Amino acid sequence: MSHSNQNNSKGITVVSEAVCQQVMGRADAFTAVENVFSAMARDTAYNFPVIREAIGHADALYGFKSGFDRVGMVLGLKSGGYWPGNIDKGLTNHQSTVILFDPDTGKLNALVGGNYLTAIRTAASSAVSIAHLARQDANVLGMVGAGHQSTFQLRAAVEQRNFKKVVAWNKEPEKLTNLAVICEELGLPFESVSREALCAQADVIITITSAFEALIDQSWIKPGTHIACMGTDTKGKQEVDAHLLARARVFTDELTQSTTIGEAQHAIAEELINEADIIPIGDVINGTKAGRTSDDEITLFDGTGVGLQDLAVASVAAELAEAKGQASYFNL
Amino acid sequence: MSHSNQNNSKGITVVSEAVCQQVMGRADAFTAVENVFSAMARDTAYNFPVIREAIGHADALYGFKSGFDRVGMVLGLKSGGYWPGNIDKGLTNHQSTVILFDPDTGKLNALVGGNYLTAIRTAASSAVSIAHLARQDANVLGMVGAGHQSTFQLRAAVEQRNFKKVVAWNKEPEKLTNLAVICEELGLPFESVSREALCAQADVIITITSAFEALIDQSWIKPGTHIACMGTDTKGKQEVDAHLLARARVFTDELTQSTTIGEAQHAIAEELINEADIIPIGDVINGTKAGRTSDDEITLFDGTGVGLQDLAVASVAAELAEAKGQASYFNL
Repeated sequence: MSHSNQNNSKGITVVSEAVCQQVMGRADAFTAVENVFSAMARDTAYNFPVIREAIGHADALYGFKSGFDRVGMVLGLKSGGYWPGNIDKGLTNHQSTVILFDPDTGKLNALVGGNYLTAIRTAASSAVSIAHLARQDANVLGMVGAGHQSTFQLRAAVEQRNFKKVVAWNKEPEKLTNLAVICEELGLPFESVSREALCAQADVIITITSAFEALIDQSWIKPGTHIACMGTDTKGKQEVDAHLLARARVFTDELTQSTTIGEAQHAIAEELINEADIIPIGDVINGTKAGRTSDDEITLFDGTGVGLQDLAVASVAAELAEAKGQASYFNL
Repeated sequence: MSHSNQNNSKGITVVSEAVCQQVMGRADAFTAVENVFSAMARDTAYNFPVIREAIGHADALYGFKSGFDRVGMVLGLKSGGYWPGNIDKGLTNHQSTVILFDPDTGKLNALVGGNYLTAIRTAASSAVSIAHLARQDANVLGMVGAGHQSTFQLRAAVEQRNFKKVVAWNKEPEKLTNLAVICEELGLPFESVSREALCAQADVIITITSAFEALIDQSWIKPGTHIACMGTDTKGKQEVDAHLLARARVFTDELTQSTTIGEAQHAIAEELINEADIIPIGDVINGTKAGRTSDDEITLFDGTGVGLQDLAVASVAAELAEAKGQASYFNL
């Protein structure tokens, strides 16, 4: 996975948003994210503290996620944030750029557009959780949330199990067409349902909303369900009943984020669970901790999103773009 | 000073190390640093928390300094660090890149080589302190430290007062030729002296070392001296006797850094002074707090180095490079 030193003679590698979309597929993202979760659990990769600031201009939230994978030899940061007024300017509200450095020298190595990569690494995260935690016979997928990001979650999820049907709920029902058109393309039956009906049917649930209160009651979730909570990445956000975490076997990408800004923040604050109850998914990938332990168990993945995911997919995108002759270069 | 939106049509601005050296002079750096210190004191610019990590590879220290100046409209970070093995590869040990974003949209705006800029912004910082705090009749400059950075401090310092002589000390005396050649070029008498003799003669002293214990005893410093402590930027480092801070009127670029990683950390820890005793130099620049209050007063500037300095000089370098047609561009 190392990208360092490959291209010193050509200069600093640039991989545009357009090239990322051309070279980087879901399978590449899945492998990169699975590898980096594994490395985090082996302590060969770690995330640096996150910087996140309300800058007091344009209502923007700006910051960096950064880290170092010393086996993969990937060092850098994703810089960017959320500019709510961008949509009116024809730009994406979330703006991200991944910047990679040579771990041997500290020199700037590559610049990679981060918007598409953020979408596919977030999708890969819930897909990895499904691959390792959902029942093998899961056949109904439930989607809670139908915004832009949900379409990426859906496409990555349906590749993990032999799903026969997708059920979905969104606060604004008209947005459900985002998901319906993908299901039609994939030949998957699609149904708009209530949240309670969704939980009654779905074997795998992905929540991908910006909710600040629980959308799902713990009593609605049937035994054996796998639920990936992907929307909560800030203090105060919440997608599911905190009591569900006490009832479920809980996994996460990163413990520190899970207990402070992830879905688990509420169950921890209410002392329904302890940090020791949460299992890094990398330990499951590495086989050092059990994943699902019975068909009736509820598994819950708290996907908070870490900088190392961004660096991992950006590093692979840079490699692929170079190999396919689609990178450009400049000197600094 | 705003750099945003000027060049959207051309793409992302690139200003190389070589171009920075061509377009950016000491006067530009002085003005940029003075302005940003002023903005920090007016609370129109602020630094985000600093990330600094020993990455566990190549003995490197890596991190980011970042911030936002909402009047200057400069948003971004300096990324980089210290790679001690670089010198053997023919590279600078300190590697820095400044990355600027458009505060209106979050889009990547400019990439600017940060090595030369770091040197001149650090020199500008002690020069600003001399301009505002040293006695007008100061005529002997004392340099403690004679490494690469000291040459930048010297050149910027001698422009602030009508110095008639430079005295200098360095742990490794052979390095003093770094300073001697500059003095010869400038027609300034230069003398290698003991630390005690240096303090007895100098009206202005700049310390620019990597020392971890006091090099200067408070009793050596004569009344009326201005001393700029520029080397201490990490917990544990120290250049002068902590008791000197109790005797002097103390100024800094940023209070938080001064008391935790700057020269003042020791006087604060030993309770020789309080944080309230330290004056942000921006308040002096803005005229809201007094600088030097008498000819006999000792003034001490604790220059810790903040991200906003890097962003300020990089923003000006990008403007100048564009205006002079020396920037290059790429698209992401």
